[in-house]
Amino acid sequence: MESGKPIIGINLKAYSQAIGMNAVKITKAAEDVSKTYGCEIFVCVMPTDLRMVKSSVSSIKVFGQHMDPVEDGAYTGHITPLALKDAGADGVMLNHSERRLRLDQIDECVKLAVKHGLKTLVCANTPLEAKAVSCFDIDMVAVEPPELIGGKVSVSTAKPEVIKNTVKEVRDVNKYVKILVGAGIKNSVDVKKSLVLGADGVLLASAVAKAQDPKKAIENLIV
Amino acid sequence: MESGKPIIGINLKAYSQAIGMNAVKITKAAEDVSKTYGCEIFVCVMPTDLRMVKSSVSSIKVFGQHMDPVEDGAYTGHITPLALKDAGADGVMLNHSERRLRLDQIDECVKLAVKHGLKTLVCANTPLEAKAVSCFDIDMVAVEPPELIGGKVSVSTAKPEVIKNTVKEVRDVNKYVKILVGAGIKNSVDVKKSLVLGADGVLLASAVAKAQDPKKAIENLIV
Amino acid sequence: MESGKPIIGINLKAYSQAIGMNAVKITKAAEDVSKTYGCEIFVCVMPTDLRMVKSSVSSIKVFGQHMDPVEDGAYTGHITPLALKDAGADGVMLNHSERRLRLDQIDECVKLAVKHGLKTLVCANTPLEAKAVSCFDIDMVAVEPPELIGGKVSVSTAKPEVIKNTVKEVRDVNKYVKILVGAGIKNSVDVKKSLVLGADGVLLASAVAKAQDPKKAIENLIV
Amino acid sequence: MESGKPIIGINLKAYSQAIGMNAVKITKAAEDVSKTYGCEIFVCVMPTDLRMVKSSVSSIKVFGQHMDPVEDGAYTGHITPLALKDAGADGVMLNHSERRLRLDQIDECVKLAVKHGLKTLVCANTPLEAKAVSCFDIDMVAVEPPELIGGKVSVSTAKPEVIKNTVKEVRDVNKYVKILVGAGIKNSVDVKKSLVLGADGVLLASAVAKAQDPKKAIENLIV
Repeated sequence: MESGKPIIGINLKAYSQAIGMNAVKITKAAEDVSKTYGCEIFVCVMPTDLRMVKSSVSSIKVFGQHMDPVEDGAYTGHITPLALKDAGADGVMLNHSERRLRLDQIDECVKLAVKHGLKTLVCANTPLEAKAVSCFDIDMVAVEPPELIGGKVSVSTAKPEVIKNTVKEVRDVNKYVKILVGAGIKNSVDVKKSLVLGADGVLLASAVAKAQDPKKAIENLIV
Repeated sequence: MESGKPIIGINLKAYSQAIGMNAVKITKAAEDVSKTYGCEIFVCVMPTDLRMVKSSVSSIKVFGQHMDPVEDGAYTGHITPLALKDAGADGVMLNHSERRLRLDQIDECVKLAVKHGLKTLVCANTPLEAKAVSCFDIDMVAVEPPELIGGKVSVSTAKPEVIKNTVKEVRDVNKYVKILVGAGIKNSVDVKKSLVLGADGVLLASAVAKAQDPKKAIENLIV
Repeated sequence: MESGKPIIGINLKAYSQAIGMNAVKITKAAEDVSKTYGCEIFVCVMPTDLRMVKSSVSSIKVFGQHMDPVEDGAYTGHITPLALKDAGADGVMLNHSERRLRLDQIDECVKLAVKHGLKTLVCANTPLEAKAVSCFDIDMVAVEPPELIGGKVSVSTAKPEVIKNTVKEVRDVNKYVKILVGAGIKNSVDVKKSLVLGADGVLLASAVAKAQDPKKAIENLIV
Repeated sequence: MESGKPIIGINLKAYSQAIGMNAVKITKAAEDVSKTYGCEIFVCVMPTDLRMVKSSVSSIKVFGQHMDPVEDGAYTGHITPLALKDAGADGVMLNHSERRLRLDQIDECVKLAVKHGLKTLVCANTPLEAKAVSCFDIDMVAVEPPELIGGKVSVSTAKPEVIKNTVKEVRDVNKYVKILVGAGIKNSVDVKKSLVLGADGVLLASAVAKAQDPKKAIENLIV
């Protein structure tokens, strides 16, 4: 985090407030904020919204929320890297606590993502899980203590040691991966604390996806 | 099948030949054939293509290939009924042999689909599995012996008794559900045999999705 | 239920109070009660306890709590019908709400159980799921509304209509399957209500497995 | 591998030739060989055989083939650490390619195993997966290229670079974990090659579990 500006990942999950045209609206707001404040923001959207969202914005990165570890072919109901790429995805989130993957599936998904030019953000529950996934060729890792997800207190306040330990453990195996932290992140105080503790950015969901004014909710993370 | 015209379900799976603009092309071809010959055709597409495909056609029904048994909310990486509806889906295929569901998930998915106005096609491996899923409030059931899927010989030729038994077993519990059969279906002889054996239609994939001329491949099913 | 005597299924789950010698003790108590009152009781035990429990009793039936849908061979970590049989199992419980199976797995497990002479008890969340599994060649079906499992109020008191509907739906497809009901069952009033509503017996767990005096807890179901 | 003597892990899988009394016979043979040649051998058995096998031998270590990441309680059909311990298990194999676990489940299982005094052997498909699981507090890691499992050519002959890379990657994060290699291992030449390449031992299955003379098959690994 040379620049002191946080990377901000916004996960729209399957919130009814963030489907379709609302996903477009939130992503556009994120793009505006990104341009204004010069920080990197990416948005993780549902597969049904990916193409429309991507074609509605210019510079902001759009991620899928999940990928299956298969290339293409007779895989009914699977999300493939080719499908994500064709729809315009810049990257994909893997192993979110609401959509966990087997270890071998993470390995395979990362290889497929690299092959097809998709950035990867891999989620983890604990510092050691973050270290484990950082053994693979991933771009970003996010640690989110499950018991704090969706809660009122941010991880940077409730469990600062989780951030410190994650940074320590991850750096032990991977110098380049960007480290995000999540769970309960809501404002610029939470974000700054995370950066001070060594993180490169944050991952958040409901604070933006369910906000009455998503743009303001995103700005609140920066100023 | 009063009218003698088959219902034709086309599953594009995750074939690289059927992604994005190719999915649009195949679905348009299906719509043309449907109008010309007056038979009901629906196409099952990947979630990333659903919205674009649906907005490119007028009358033909477009289905998702899978749905998760959750309504909306904190369900990262899930395919929800609200997401499918927002993207324009008319229905959803469930429990395909490449994307099997637990019994309780089928039950829950069917309830959610009914609630949100999505038609349901539920797949089954055997006549008794077809009977079991026909206990729920579904619109169509498809039986596909897994060992024949993607093969050269159609189910109507290789295992006509599977079709007869499926019709017998399903009708024992459900008078209204449409019965489709699949696996190896390629031409109008296969289709007619299926109807003679009591089916209402067919479900197929590679014969259309991987065809050089998808329109011709679909017409071949009728004439 | 000619005799008016209930079938009683006792599921020891993975309760620490019901492991090893405690599983033996509870099963012996169940056998004593079964002999005294002339009603059929079976106990579902963990695979690690199956052989020891079975060799400690004479007449009472001992069931596994789960089976995987594979015959034998390179299936590390699976519970096979041959393994259950060799350990002395009389039957197997399938699709418990804490260990759900895919529809095709239920189908396959039932076929394997029949082939290897294992009785089957298949669990279901709802009357329609109970009907669906009763399409297969099973011996017993148990309906347990998940929201009442482990609770203070029995299904026969809280949701008598679930029992009535289950009986109606199941009998529509299967005249011979024994119908058990579960969730919150604790005493003979709960059991009798269940029989009056048309059930053949009950399935219960914590009321016996965690009881200070398991024998008394089982007797309480009858007198 | 100071001593130059290999650690040998024998996985009985669900082979019909290795159930019940056959599991006892094979484990006794392994114990004899272990005593004669002074090398460490452990046997991974089905949960239904664990107690009987353990009570039939004295010094050899007996492992479970799988554990679920739950402590105890309402977990029907799960294999818990308490159940394994009560049955006499010395350790547990996790994440075998026939019984893969999610990353968070591996993390949780390892913590539970440590808490309950069970040794852990965690399997991996690739050198990087082996490195990833070695981030956790495990005792042994086994790398087995899935495409070679059950085949005629051993990993040490077909893919020596897999062993070298595994040793290199694993030692980068964990100095103490014992490194086993598996897939196609059949004789002392395969074993010696593995040790020369830096492994501490081997993991094998069919070569012993399906052997006409298991004792000889085990001796063949050493002399």
